[in-house]
Amino acid sequence: MQNRLYAGQSCSIARALDVVGERWSLLIVREALLGATRFDEFLRNLGIARNVLADRLGTLVHGGVLQRVPYQERPLRHEYHLTDRGRELVPVVLALMQWGDRHFAGPAGPPRLAEHDGCGGAARSGVHCVECDRELTPTEVTTRFNPVYVPKR
Amino acid sequence: MQNRLYAGQSCSIARALDVVGERWSLLIVREALLGATRFDEFLRNLGIARNVLADRLGTLVHGGVLQRVPYQERPLRHEYHLTDRGRELVPVVLALMQWGDRHFAGPAGPPRLAEHDGCGGAARSGVHCVECDRELTPTEVTTRFNPVYVPKR
Repeated sequence: MQNRLYAGQSCSIARALDVVGERWSLLIVREALLGATRFDEFLRNLGIARNVLADRLGTLVHGGVLQRVPYQERPLRHEYHLTDRGRELVPVVLALMQWGDRHFAGPAGPPRLAEHDGCGGAARSGVHCVECDRELTPTEVTTRFNPVYVPKR
Repeated sequence: MQNRLYAGQSCSIARALDVVGERWSLLIVREALLGATRFDEFLRNLGIARNVLADRLGTLVHGGVLQRVPYQERPLRHEYHLTDRGRELVPVVLALMQWGDRHFAGPAGPPRLAEHDGCGGAARSGVHCVECDRELTPTEVTTRFNPVYVPKR
């Protein structure tokens, strides 16, 4: 996991980035969400170096984001399948995508649109208040220490 | 911007990662969201190397996430303030944090809790359907090509 670069930090953002914060990692997750499963598919779609891809796939498997599943016996070959934990990165990937859409898409507009698979309505990443049951703007969100959290000694 | 590592990709995730995808970048944004503004504050809070911090701050300023604001004339010294674009990273940072909370927090629980600054209700990152007006699970979200998008030649 990136040599646990941020291991000294008792922060869930740092811990998440130890698994998905390396260069290319979230683009590999993007490809997996779009249906890629095989090494050569990731390689072709991303234009990434073979050794870098192998390393990142290893980190993602170790972090429980992808699962190696054999698809051929002789020689043994594996596919990479998203786990539930990996699929739960959808809000992360979509939040990045829509931030990129807003600020860097240019006049051609966003390359891809996210939608609700059921009704076809636009799907928006955001922050939701469970009390008010509404979407919050960035300035309406704050964080505070968890009073029951006990840091490790 | 990370030498525009992903520049060949007409993808908003790749474009976003060109600005905030380097090691430490999103932890610098986290610190800025928590109120840090000065070089030495980021240095102390993150335990990051001085030259790496300078480089990352430069990328974030160049990408419009942070703004350099003078706070002293002789010698000239700057603070780093989040721009609106930077503050719009809240859903990205919170999505990472809550993914980390769910999968890596351990028995001590999450170190920090996000809440609605107005009512104190729990703030959850997620994906919202604007038609159904409800939160979607990861498997309910899909993306498709934008029919009016024209890729650059």
